[in-house]
Amino acid sequence: MKALEERIVKDGRVINDNILKVDSFLTHQVDPILMTAIGQEFASHFQNKGITKVATIESSGISPALITALNLNVPLVIFKKNAHKALNGSLLHTEVTSFTTGKTFELTASPKFLKPEDHVLIIDDILANGEAITGVIRILRMAHATVAGTGIIIEKTFQPGRNKITEAGVEVYSLAKIKSMSSSGIEFEE
Amino acid sequence: MKALEERIVKDGRVINDNILKVDSFLTHQVDPILMTAIGQEFASHFQNKGITKVATIESSGISPALITALNLNVPLVIFKKNAHKALNGSLLHTEVTSFTTGKTFELTASPKFLKPEDHVLIIDDILANGEAITGVIRILRMAHATVAGTGIIIEKTFQPGRNKITEAGVEVYSLAKIKSMSSSGIEFEE
Repeated sequence: MKALEERIVKDGRVINDNILKVDSFLTHQVDPILMTAIGQEFASHFQNKGITKVATIESSGISPALITALNLNVPLVIFKKNAHKALNGSLLHTEVTSFTTGKTFELTASPKFLKPEDHVLIIDDILANGEAITGVIRILRMAHATVAGTGIIIEKTFQPGRNKITEAGVEVYSLAKIKSMSSSGIEFEE
Repeated sequence: MKALEERIVKDGRVINDNILKVDSFLTHQVDPILMTAIGQEFASHFQNKGITKVATIESSGISPALITALNLNVPLVIFKKNAHKALNGSLLHTEVTSFTTGKTFELTASPKFLKPEDHVLIIDDILANGEAITGVIRILRMAHATVAGTGIIIEKTFQPGRNKITEAGVEVYSLAKIKSMSSSGIEFEE
């Protein structure tokens, strides 16, 4: 997605070879016009897949996922991150450890909104090591729902996230694929 | 907003005189079509107020706030809740204690996206005691930004949130005002 790559080059800040800050249009401040274009692109790519729900993880995934769900005319289900083990026994939950920060959190979702007949599209902002997304896939499988695919805004292809998701049998569709980055610039994959 | 009141009656669950669950269309599962109508209504109400940014608190406020920002053609700024004190000294922060749960969290925002020339509309899903919103107002004032008003989806008018916000000199515009609720039903204010 050309407009997205241009925005990453213009406003993204490469902190080191692994960390890209996109806080001015995606994580802390959100550009609603760019999110609309992104959501429309995901909806268009997955439109004939029989999707019944869009799922995302709070919080940066919510904006693009909402526009995707709106264009697919299905509800959005929000997975929550909890610092502590979920005490609410009625929630589906799994532990996720972030490879980048080393921090562990409990990912939860309400089983009321995930049924065996659901075919779920997962939307997230950034794919690096794939820990959070594979956590979502685990929870969807606990609910006996099926996974329609994953839509990612920015993928760092030099990290193992894509492999982990495709090994779980799930398609990954990324709008911007970063092959490498450093203080001298960002290189995208075609 | 008639469609919203009808949806609250149809899908909301009154847990007790204080707690209303709206997890099937607003907090855990989100109805994108209803969020679009809500965001359009907020944008229409505040359209001539010179708003430069919309602000919300993660996570349930993000969906309606995104549509509001899209319709006002301004960026959305997301305030984050942290379980622990923010260690990142570059963030604006204030402590908020939830009256309902008794839990304290640290509310943070990046000062990069809140400037003295900004006139900010705050959007949130539910107004009860107003602790989180008055926290957002404190942070906006630390940044020397001005507050254009507050747009609330569901207000519980029997709780003191509105008073606290109007005492801070800020308008509250609510789409559904609940006067009382119990197992026998929900009563709205005109």
